[in-house]
Amino acid sequence: MPRYLLTIEYDGMQYHGWQRQEGLRTVQQSLEVAISKAFGGLIVPTVACGRTDAGVHAIAMPVHVDLPEAQLYRIQHAINYYAFQAGEAFAVTSVRLVADDFHARFSAVNRVYRYLIHQQQAPLVLFQQRAWRVVKPLDMEAMRLAAQHLVGMHDFTSFRATECQAKNPVRTIDSIVITQQGVEIACEFMARSFLHHMVRNMVGTLKMVGEGKISSEAIPHMLAARERSAAGETAPAYGLYFLRAEYILT
Amino acid sequence: MPRYLLTIEYDGMQYHGWQRQEGLRTVQQSLEVAISKAFGGLIVPTVACGRTDAGVHAIAMPVHVDLPEAQLYRIQHAINYYAFQAGEAFAVTSVRLVADDFHARFSAVNRVYRYLIHQQQAPLVLFQQRAWRVVKPLDMEAMRLAAQHLVGMHDFTSFRATECQAKNPVRTIDSIVITQQGVEIACEFMARSFLHHMVRNMVGTLKMVGEGKISSEAIPHMLAARERSAAGETAPAYGLYFLRAEYILT
Repeated sequence: MPRYLLTIEYDGMQYHGWQRQEGLRTVQQSLEVAISKAFGGLIVPTVACGRTDAGVHAIAMPVHVDLPEAQLYRIQHAINYYAFQAGEAFAVTSVRLVADDFHARFSAVNRVYRYLIHQQQAPLVLFQQRAWRVVKPLDMEAMRLAAQHLVGMHDFTSFRATECQAKNPVRTIDSIVITQQGVEIACEFMARSFLHHMVRNMVGTLKMVGEGKISSEAIPHMLAARERSAAGETAPAYGLYFLRAEYILT
Repeated sequence: MPRYLLTIEYDGMQYHGWQRQEGLRTVQQSLEVAISKAFGGLIVPTVACGRTDAGVHAIAMPVHVDLPEAQLYRIQHAINYYAFQAGEAFAVTSVRLVADDFHARFSAVNRVYRYLIHQQQAPLVLFQQRAWRVVKPLDMEAMRLAAQHLVGMHDFTSFRATECQAKNPVRTIDSIVITQQGVEIACEFMARSFLHHMVRNMVGTLKMVGEGKISSEAIPHMLAARERSAAGETAPAYGLYFLRAEYILT
């Protein structure tokens, strides 16, 4: 069967993360059920670019899957139809044919995450469970200085979950861009790959810098300490969005 | 009692519009209930800048109300506390003291509405009930040309609801700004005031221009016809946001 690259949007608050788990509603399981309905009971595994945690949203999560040959728009419509019928909170936003050796996870050369903070005293209404509410005004310049210390190749042991299973804690961050528009602060992180909770731990630390609780100059020491307790708090999952991944398609 | 200007954010899909209606959940009624709880049973009327329809959201709707003298943040916190307790989908984002003759509706010198269109084949997930999904790619240049014909002082009879009760159908639009970012098209309208359904009828018409169903040159003829059937369709309520109003505070 040919291999297809699906792009999936989902509301992370409706799922216990991407990865299939016995007895829990996950994006992977819900997607595979919709595919099965769309293809007459076919059971096929899906592979995502990133295995997001419970609560983390996706704007464009790449997923590969092998399916019987069909027109691209028919694949998209059929999966979306059964997802809608089942009341799912995901949709297939695009479908393309890829090479048989394409791998949504291992072929990705770049991943981009966005984290949204809303600076507001009142509870969030339209961005409830879509952004992290931080009441204290954040110092953008201090946050940007701190972010510059995270860019580049580092051992990110202090910024990964203690249960992270990656063998190598070294990662290279290509860029961190922090922008502000009205009450919204958006932090975008680009890297080939990230460790478990790495973006949320960086955001939690940057937020503490913005609040003045940590100096931006403390970041190099946090990295050097190589233990989780040296860095800042973990930002909540619902402010995080898997934005996109990049591939070199031949 | 002194007069206060509250700014309210709300999710329009959770209410039958702003205005109090017997037996229906409206923002005005819900707000007045929360105020009553916050002020020991006090029953006071609230006056909003705009009486939005069912489904229309507000980012910052100005509302005036006369309340016993209290610290501004205490007013905000108390109302938000009772709103949260009641599971409401609104929040008070700011409170300020205004002159006794300030009027949220009549003192406004400008109102700004934003309409969101998402260009996507798949059903909307994160923007479900937050944007209008339009599949056909819209011609931005044609829409901008059409919008220019709407700017200025015109008789907007063709663009108001047939049940609109305003005596004078003449309005002056200061600006219409149409921007595109990824799949999102945002249309912002600024005017001293608008007629009933006027923004939604303009957006529905601009969308038909963008689809190529109507020429941008047809807009002057629509205005001249002065009947609702001459203009385009009514865009759905859930894509519309009351963004802000402007006052000259002395």
